[in-house]
Amino acid sequence: MARRVKRAKTHRGPNPYPAQLCHPFAPQSLFSDDAIGAIHDMALKVLEQLGMKILLPEAVKLFHSAGATVDGDMVRIGRDIVLNALQTAPTEITLHAPNPARNQTLKQGAMLFGPGAGCPNATDRIMGRRPGRLVDYENALRLQQATDVIHLLGPSAEPQDVPANTRHYAFMHGQLALCDKPIFVYARGRGQVAESFEMIQLAMGLSAHDFTNQVWTKTVINTNSPRQIDRPMSQGIIDFARAGQLTIITPFCLAGAMAPITVSGALVLQHAEALAGITLAQIARPGAPVVYGAFGSNVDMKSGAPAFGTPEHIQMTLGSGQLARLIGLPWRSAAGSAANTTDAQAAGETHMSMWAALLGGATMTFHAAGWLEGGLSFGFEKFINDIEMLQTFAHLSNPPQTDPESLGWAALQDVQPGGHFFATEHTMDRYRDAFYKPLVADLSNFGQWSDAGSKTADERATAIWQNMLQDFKPPNGAAERAANIAAFIADGQARGGAAILD
Amino acid sequence: MARRVKRAKTHRGPNPYPAQLCHPFAPQSLFSDDAIGAIHDMALKVLEQLGMKILLPEAVKLFHSAGATVDGDMVRIGRDIVLNALQTAPTEITLHAPNPARNQTLKQGAMLFGPGAGCPNATDRIMGRRPGRLVDYENALRLQQATDVIHLLGPSAEPQDVPANTRHYAFMHGQLALCDKPIFVYARGRGQVAESFEMIQLAMGLSAHDFTNQVWTKTVINTNSPRQIDRPMSQGIIDFARAGQLTIITPFCLAGAMAPITVSGALVLQHAEALAGITLAQIARPGAPVVYGAFGSNVDMKSGAPAFGTPEHIQMTLGSGQLARLIGLPWRSAAGSAANTTDAQAAGETHMSMWAALLGGATMTFHAAGWLEGGLSFGFEKFINDIEMLQTFAHLSNPPQTDPESLGWAALQDVQPGGHFFATEHTMDRYRDAFYKPLVADLSNFGQWSDAGSKTADERATAIWQNMLQDFKPPNGAAERAANIAAFIADGQARGGAAILD
Repeated sequence: MARRVKRAKTHRGPNPYPAQLCHPFAPQSLFSDDAIGAIHDMALKVLEQLGMKILLPEAVKLFHSAGATVDGDMVRIGRDIVLNALQTAPTEITLHAPNPARNQTLKQGAMLFGPGAGCPNATDRIMGRRPGRLVDYENALRLQQATDVIHLLGPSAEPQDVPANTRHYAFMHGQLALCDKPIFVYARGRGQVAESFEMIQLAMGLSAHDFTNQVWTKTVINTNSPRQIDRPMSQGIIDFARAGQLTIITPFCLAGAMAPITVSGALVLQHAEALAGITLAQIARPGAPVVYGAFGSNVDMKSGAPAFGTPEHIQMTLGSGQLARLIGLPWRSAAGSAANTTDAQAAGETHMSMWAALLGGATMTFHAAGWLEGGLSFGFEKFINDIEMLQTFAHLSNPPQTDPESLGWAALQDVQPGGHFFATEHTMDRYRDAFYKPLVADLSNFGQWSDAGSKTADERATAIWQNMLQDFKPPNGAAERAANIAAFIADGQARGGAAILD
Repeated sequence: MARRVKRAKTHRGPNPYPAQLCHPFAPQSLFSDDAIGAIHDMALKVLEQLGMKILLPEAVKLFHSAGATVDGDMVRIGRDIVLNALQTAPTEITLHAPNPARNQTLKQGAMLFGPGAGCPNATDRIMGRRPGRLVDYENALRLQQATDVIHLLGPSAEPQDVPANTRHYAFMHGQLALCDKPIFVYARGRGQVAESFEMIQLAMGLSAHDFTNQVWTKTVINTNSPRQIDRPMSQGIIDFARAGQLTIITPFCLAGAMAPITVSGALVLQHAEALAGITLAQIARPGAPVVYGAFGSNVDMKSGAPAFGTPEHIQMTLGSGQLARLIGLPWRSAAGSAANTTDAQAAGETHMSMWAALLGGATMTFHAAGWLEGGLSFGFEKFINDIEMLQTFAHLSNPPQTDPESLGWAALQDVQPGGHFFATEHTMDRYRDAFYKPLVADLSNFGQWSDAGSKTADERATAIWQNMLQDFKPPNGAAERAANIAAFIADGQARGGAAILD
């Protein structure tokens, strides 16, 4: 029987895996239930007794209206206020994409990957390391779109050649013109957020009602650890909540620097800050979509540099998963690497932190591909190598078949001792799609590999991303979506854009 | 109080971890209990109905004496015989080392690491790739001894410059003169095995009774998949069992080549072959120490080359762990890499396969450090980079403290919003040993790293292994142990050694 499988020209390997991935592993517990309870409890005590410094008066007022004790910009939040907020935060969120086939459901058990993001620089083997440019930002988007295992778009490289006041136009244009996956918006001030929301509505032809009642975009809210939320982040929480859009409240707690030096102490601070942000969102609009964010590791005590993939990073991630399960919310983790190039250190750190996110049951893991230098640079070769890792995880979500035919009695009968299975019917029926086909891994032997120039995985990845860019075609509908916002952007540019801070 | 901790000059990082490691994670199940039961059951059916080809008549006789049906060298083993054998196989084994502090207990839940082994070649950045030499074999032993996280000695590089008939003297001399960890013996014919046992007794001053009643050495028995055990391997099983020494029965089942193309089918074959070997050991001497061995992955269907760290490798490892738990025995897994150099591919593949071994609850994981080219080369820089990975796992066996002081209320009170924890008493009390200190990872920023020559992890590892070798001193007692076998070896050399095949 001739079977024709229509397959997108994207990099998902030979065996299609579901567009919505689920975790292949049961989440692991590092801490006892009592210990997690103690961390949760101390976080509530931090909010209640020590408080959070909230730099936006409107946010202070909101906390006050919900019963928090206010002393200038210091807000002490009783545990009843926090626990009420956790009651209204949704446990399941549908994140819409321009292409409905790219929609993702966020809930405990779901597994989504986001690219390395927020990097001021870009690196590749052709041009070397440079401050991020618009072309780097857009090329990174093309790679994100071309790789099915990247579920969420992210600002991989900051386009520093675009003025700050009009950069949000570039962010939106790039995503809408090149991609059809769920869109990010940076919370860099009310004007930019409002205009970004407007562009999404225009592009997709959504009424204000449609937009506000479905989740069309997301932003990452970083608290200013310890115990502070600044003006743009507070505004972002409020504006996204009111517009029904998703905030991912992510303290970046580095044990020994901006957080206590112990893993458990750093988790207390992370949990307190995440709960404070989640609470503000729920006060602004009960039921607002929020994700519990966690990105904790340790610093190197010699240099103060952030470290990734360390035992402490892994432990913070597993503990974060337990805290997220305790409060029942979808949660966001982060992989990452401190390495300066795409070498064995880079791979090791990202694998270690990715496995921790998997075992912690992270709903979304950001910086899962391409993040070098602790986020200071987006690496194109690093991205390709990390995609190999993510595709491996995605394939694990297809469990092996265990029907009687798969167990292979016929093949075992066919092949005599000392023989081989290459030519059995069991093999011939299955060999095309039996195994994951590597993207960058080279399985040739030493002689073949040497003859081909002894290329490392870093070197081989260059041609891969170059080919992906060369083959790239924007998805269906992207041109129309981009056209729908062209006039808006032209007007905005003429006006000088929108200030990045309020 | 001045506390003096006596610490060996070995590479274990700042926070000592126990000499005997336990798994930090709960084992994961990939297959349902029913599916694992079906695999186990079909493996028993393979042994019962299809049988194993056993090339040593003495082994055939042993199987026959236990009730197996014999047809020439084809042995069909009833499930009652196998299940009886599983009753007498010990579930806990103490593996003795020349230094009792290096003894290891093998049981479900224990976590031991062995080096990359069995490699015909050695590779480093100074000398390049060459056929293994005695000096490579011995230098690899020095590195194994110097790294606490390597628990078991292994023949990393084959000393091809030593004649085959006397190579077992080199194997034993190197281990006894340079190391004090549990010793391997190759099962390369009765003469070499008997002489190796004798050397261990001489070196340690053990009576034959002491030797036979404790486990002093181990060997890996590879079946010849599919469904065959050759003469030296059969001899090894019998001789080790009778001498009370450990056999690790390890089919190397590559799905699509020497095993069925499906993961579940390859597991059926692996399980059948491992059970056959375990059964032979138990027939030879009920109670003989055995480990269930599992090293399964897939081949690349394009080239036929073995692949490592793939989804299928991970799945085979997780399934193997479930089968080992079903039969209740300690089990041996394997990491590995097909990469030709210490690059991101090499790190990725070894991390993937090591994490699978961890999640499968492997008692011993071999090829955990230094294995390149699917085992064709032992890489010195690869070894150093993999030690970083293993040390990270070892540190995970120290769970974070959760006492009230560790949770850090005092520190959280001390530090005001927007401040930092660098100088708090909580940090100052703990910073020296708070975090894992990397061995090869470079956490310096891009500028510092560039100024220092833009060295990759591969390049940095060279100086590390060179320094380890330069600083190396054999452990206490090693010189005496080596002296104890000097005359035996001299005599053996004069006789021309022992044939490697019977």
